[in-house]
Amino acid sequence: MIAEILATGDEIRSGALVDSNSAYISQKIEEVGVEVSRHISVGDDLDILASTFKEISNRAQIAVVTGGLGPTSDDLSAQAAASAMGVELVLDEEALKSMEAFFIKRNLPMGVSNKKQAFLPVGSRIIHNPLGTAPGFYIKINKCSFFFLPGVPFEMKTMLKNTVLLKINELLGDNRQTCIVKTISTFGITESAAGERLAGLTDLFPDIKLGFRSKFPVIQIKLYLYGKDEEKLNTKMKAVEPYVLEKFGKKVFSVNDTSLEAVVGELLRSKGLTLAIAESCTGGLVSHLITNQPGSSDYFLFSGVTYSNKSKINLLGVSEKTLEKYGAVHEETAKEMAQGARRIAGASHGIATTGIAGPGGGTEDKPVGTICIGMATPDGVKGYTYNFPFPKRSMNKIIFAMKAIDLLRLELQKAL
Amino acid sequence: MIAEILATGDEIRSGALVDSNSAYISQKIEEVGVEVSRHISVGDDLDILASTFKEISNRAQIAVVTGGLGPTSDDLSAQAAASAMGVELVLDEEALKSMEAFFIKRNLPMGVSNKKQAFLPVGSRIIHNPLGTAPGFYIKINKCSFFFLPGVPFEMKTMLKNTVLLKINELLGDNRQTCIVKTISTFGITESAAGERLAGLTDLFPDIKLGFRSKFPVIQIKLYLYGKDEEKLNTKMKAVEPYVLEKFGKKVFSVNDTSLEAVVGELLRSKGLTLAIAESCTGGLVSHLITNQPGSSDYFLFSGVTYSNKSKINLLGVSEKTLEKYGAVHEETAKEMAQGARRIAGASHGIATTGIAGPGGGTEDKPVGTICIGMATPDGVKGYTYNFPFPKRSMNKIIFAMKAIDLLRLELQKAL
Repeated sequence: MIAEILATGDEIRSGALVDSNSAYISQKIEEVGVEVSRHISVGDDLDILASTFKEISNRAQIAVVTGGLGPTSDDLSAQAAASAMGVELVLDEEALKSMEAFFIKRNLPMGVSNKKQAFLPVGSRIIHNPLGTAPGFYIKINKCSFFFLPGVPFEMKTMLKNTVLLKINELLGDNRQTCIVKTISTFGITESAAGERLAGLTDLFPDIKLGFRSKFPVIQIKLYLYGKDEEKLNTKMKAVEPYVLEKFGKKVFSVNDTSLEAVVGELLRSKGLTLAIAESCTGGLVSHLITNQPGSSDYFLFSGVTYSNKSKINLLGVSEKTLEKYGAVHEETAKEMAQGARRIAGASHGIATTGIAGPGGGTEDKPVGTICIGMATPDGVKGYTYNFPFPKRSMNKIIFAMKAIDLLRLELQKAL
Repeated sequence: MIAEILATGDEIRSGALVDSNSAYISQKIEEVGVEVSRHISVGDDLDILASTFKEISNRAQIAVVTGGLGPTSDDLSAQAAASAMGVELVLDEEALKSMEAFFIKRNLPMGVSNKKQAFLPVGSRIIHNPLGTAPGFYIKINKCSFFFLPGVPFEMKTMLKNTVLLKINELLGDNRQTCIVKTISTFGITESAAGERLAGLTDLFPDIKLGFRSKFPVIQIKLYLYGKDEEKLNTKMKAVEPYVLEKFGKKVFSVNDTSLEAVVGELLRSKGLTLAIAESCTGGLVSHLITNQPGSSDYFLFSGVTYSNKSKINLLGVSEKTLEKYGAVHEETAKEMAQGARRIAGASHGIATTGIAGPGGGTEDKPVGTICIGMATPDGVKGYTYNFPFPKRSMNKIIFAMKAIDLLRLELQKAL
């Protein structure tokens, strides 16, 4: 069974908006065992939409269409589907009631233009939208089952999960498969190096489909297993996981989708520890990442972003001598910053960053990309120096901040 | 003239990677006056690629293809183009020399597999790649001019600008147009509200093509003018700009692509002022944004991220009485935090945030989305309270931080 994905809308066609829906839908559809062969985007044009639907219906058995379900005159998906099939639009009472309920629940008046959204092609069935006004629908055009969803990502995702994936499973019938996905998240390795380490995997485990997902600087290794017997798949996956973990060792920070910040947060919380941060070159990013975690106030106490030497001395208690002798970008300074933050906040752990994010400020000794990290713990203080080769300030800030958080993870895991 | 864009690669087709190249290329191509009618993505499959090229060549006059130019066996673009045309691949001496020069310049050995990249379809012309090893090429299939570029964004962008857009201009011949783009960046208005304010624009200025670009929470208004006489276009644009500016007033923070953080940075720098920040709910994001600006050490002195009441008292000198009387999330607390940060760092200006980003911590009085901002200046201190309706912690952190930075902009612009 082959699927295609169509993202509609002039804002996507013209490039005003990057279409991230299609990638999301592809992943989810491939996870239920259907191959996605093509993504298409076209604009808000009735004839083009109708002919694109026909074209897809001759190639694929499943199509997921996003966008064009809103109340305005630009929203043409239902009309184009009706036109492609040579049928009329009719008022769908179920869709109308569901929309009315949406507005009543929120104590809002329903606009006249909203009623348009309840007109669906004859023969279609509604896909409920619990989070917005635009109902979706599904219908067969030629031999292809079309699923029409709104373009708003969080509405689309909910409807895909609640309805579309279940319907696709029904369509698969005896070909239905379960997909087991294992996500192993790593820090400190490039995608190509990760690929090399796993070069032998599919020889040993020929059923495994291997994928990578990169969200700089994290590389996620995705292992997919398809089959009919979920228990057998789980057993097989359990055999593969140790192989992968052995290849990456301490670079693995989670064996699910948990972020590095969440892993560190959970380590701190479960051990009853607290964190203080002193940042120079990362400019607040370490604490921004740490506090992205809901409930981080349980363990995060304080961060001081000290750009100037003066603020390093006055606020963190870094000694003038250290700064004179070694300069601001040095392990010794980082160590004193970490100790200062830890002391000021009364935290169990302190981490500190000082380095050169660029574009300016690099020297031969300390080029752009140099980062010194200090780690103060109840057992003492340590310093680290690294050099990263990235050309952009924004990339350097991220890799510096994530490296500091990862060192803290390793520190906390040691004591496990 | 109609253009289509094709992004190739299994990582895009399967959803492992979001394709942002196609949106970028669309924008740039529409700016030279060519309409983009369709984006397509297909995987690394020789037959599918060749048939997709043929299909596009029957609909469009221009096609830009990204990806598939690398050295590995998955990289099939040149071979598929040759297959679509029924020609052979031949070693392109110019491409080979350019690649050899790339490796020599970087003192790296050229791999055997790289030589494959210099084999191009008979009849094609090289597109130089100054930033990578994969040369691009262009060739006519049927009546459509195909431009093949690498998928690596920064290589693609450079080659698009240096070669492809110039070639498209040549193809346009007498139909060649200049496009003038004006980007007006606003804070504090939704895209739909911005659209409503400009509903009358195209009646008054029928030549203007209006676009919006949203990067939460900033909305950019894009004005496009096409024509042959650049001087006339500039004169026209000058007439439109005041109309738009009048509609948005102080919500406009730049009339070019400059970010809010950069505008505030430039205001501080040009006035010889300095900034200290105290953050609670934004957790470091305000200072992360401020320090994303290269050279921000000229004006940014210090930020203290104080989550706990204790750190607000000990580090920023917020009075215990204020915290007892009003609580942590209150204008009075925000004001004392801003004053504290300003005093500690010896800065001319201090800003502070304290609020409830969620998901927990909300009350009836102070629901999730509540933000109090303090602004300490040489003239005294002010407090502000806002309530934002966003459902996600990450969105709240961003809108809180951007609101604080925008208030600082308005404060600094007052004194202009």
